[in-house]
Amino acid sequence: MLTVFSEKHALHDSKTELYGGELVPPFECPVRAEHILQRVRDVGLGEIIAPQSFDIEAVTRIHDPAFIRFLETCWEDWAATGYKGEAMAICWPARGMQQRIPDHIDGKLGYYSLSAETAISNGTWEAARTSVDVALSAQAALRDGAREAFALCRPPGHHAAGDMYGGYCFINNAAVAAQAFLDQGASRVALLDVDFHHGNGSQAIFYDRSDVMFLSLHGDPRDAFPHFLGYADESGQGGGKGFNHNYPMAPGTSFKTWGDALADACRKINNYAPDALVISLGVDTFEHDPISFFKLASDDFKRYGATIAALNLPTLFIMEGGYAVEEIGINAVNVLEGYEGR
Amino acid sequence: MLTVFSEKHALHDSKTELYGGELVPPFECPVRAEHILQRVRDVGLGEIIAPQSFDIEAVTRIHDPAFIRFLETCWEDWAATGYKGEAMAICWPARGMQQRIPDHIDGKLGYYSLSAETAISNGTWEAARTSVDVALSAQAALRDGAREAFALCRPPGHHAAGDMYGGYCFINNAAVAAQAFLDQGASRVALLDVDFHHGNGSQAIFYDRSDVMFLSLHGDPRDAFPHFLGYADESGQGGGKGFNHNYPMAPGTSFKTWGDALADACRKINNYAPDALVISLGVDTFEHDPISFFKLASDDFKRYGATIAALNLPTLFIMEGGYAVEEIGINAVNVLEGYEGR
Repeated sequence: MLTVFSEKHALHDSKTELYGGELVPPFECPVRAEHILQRVRDVGLGEIIAPQSFDIEAVTRIHDPAFIRFLETCWEDWAATGYKGEAMAICWPARGMQQRIPDHIDGKLGYYSLSAETAISNGTWEAARTSVDVALSAQAALRDGAREAFALCRPPGHHAAGDMYGGYCFINNAAVAAQAFLDQGASRVALLDVDFHHGNGSQAIFYDRSDVMFLSLHGDPRDAFPHFLGYADESGQGGGKGFNHNYPMAPGTSFKTWGDALADACRKINNYAPDALVISLGVDTFEHDPISFFKLASDDFKRYGATIAALNLPTLFIMEGGYAVEEIGINAVNVLEGYEGR
Repeated sequence: MLTVFSEKHALHDSKTELYGGELVPPFECPVRAEHILQRVRDVGLGEIIAPQSFDIEAVTRIHDPAFIRFLETCWEDWAATGYKGEAMAICWPARGMQQRIPDHIDGKLGYYSLSAETAISNGTWEAARTSVDVALSAQAALRDGAREAFALCRPPGHHAAGDMYGGYCFINNAAVAAQAFLDQGASRVALLDVDFHHGNGSQAIFYDRSDVMFLSLHGDPRDAFPHFLGYADESGQGGGKGFNHNYPMAPGTSFKTWGDALADACRKINNYAPDALVISLGVDTFEHDPISFFKLASDDFKRYGATIAALNLPTLFIMEGGYAVEEIGINAVNVLEGYEGR
């Protein structure tokens, strides 16, 4: 399987995350991608290539252009204030408040974010911009005839909505890639999100559309980030009604329960008969993930890779979360090896 | 003039505020109240009394009872997680997300807050509960015949909405006191907010009502916290249409400009002919305030106190913000002395 990777992921190297009322080193850190890359090499998964550069228009098919400009200029605007830390939101348009875009960077950060834990720092934009190029380059491989590919994206993307960042995500790599399939002639794309956290951004982006079916297996939002989306009764709206499927699961969920949900999701994908499958591949479902609560063992990742392969679809894997850094390479590549029947 | 004060304000003594991407000692700190109290004593403003205890029903006339229970239990729920810092929101129901109340304290904090800078710690609830007793005790003095009184409240209240805390505020002391006037038979109450920041909580609470006219002079929300409310075109809704008046002003605003806005607000109050006047008294309009951008000098506070007195109404002063700690006593008491014609 082809892997696309760029060293530029390391340009996003924020030093602080707001967690438990403290500023801690971010769980989403550069070494994550390095460990995955090393494992890809160690198992001989296949060729590893650098991404091509794509026009921003592929991104603004999904994201508000003003939001993209905000991401591009945020750090410069923040630095101009003289603030000493990294850029974080402190207030937001809460219930009953105005959805207007303020002039001050504190206001812009609040308008364009959905969480406060994620810091933007020097290099965040270039890394995020490259991460979506990684996704689009892997997608281009499928366009050109490959049956599957692995986009080793960092930063991740599935929490990013059309005009909001958060949850370590800035540009929604999976959504941009799904749109690229459609723009190249696909009629239907399935986007299956197996990250521990609900892919709220992806859901929101495609919620009123039937040309992308979104399915997500995740920690119940009553107990897990992002807390305010990912409930079982969110099934799509308008023309998208019936094309959104959430599988929220409780703390302590085992692979048995998780696998049953995956099997149900795969049945729905099969019935949908998509032209392509995009996997938002987070491995924070791992039993020892420091900020999650599912109980998948490393071997379980190999097993569910095989389940995905049985769908027999052109498949694009997009890297998302996973914070048990020592095991992230094994777990992520186990999915890919399982898919390949190794 | 009578002053109501409780030492219990000091129970709210959080050590951290999220500011400029760092956790810094909170600008809203216990010494603020001590300096104001000392100045009240120094100038011989009048008697200083401790508050009575009021039933929570006076508070739930304004606030959602579930929100009040959240404030009461928040610290205990937070401490049970093992988090090492103070309780702060990290995510919230952003655009397009669900307004559901999660089970996990991180979700509850996001649901019930409008900003992330404000930490809840051990003692916050008792201090906030006492602060509203201070306001209600001062209000009771007017009920019993006093012409004016000063509620030396801390923590402040004007950013707190019916079911959200933030901006250093937990319970909206001024709104609760305004409601008490109405519940005692007043037909109309004017709530004039002269704090540098827009009183978004007070506005939201009374936005569809004509029995409380809300008027706020403040830093333009395009440039200043809370960023998402306080625009000039917010005039009330439904039965409250025409009873909300905002005076957003630009960075560098002088007392001349500010005083013109106050004069206009006073004309509106006079025409409204309220039975009582509640002043949300913040002195962060001061030229040397560390987090604000108006240019009032200490003497200006005395001058505008006289302007308020000219309305010739029963007047309840409720302490709100002001972060130039060394001068806060002089500036706050200057308003009261100006009111008294000293």
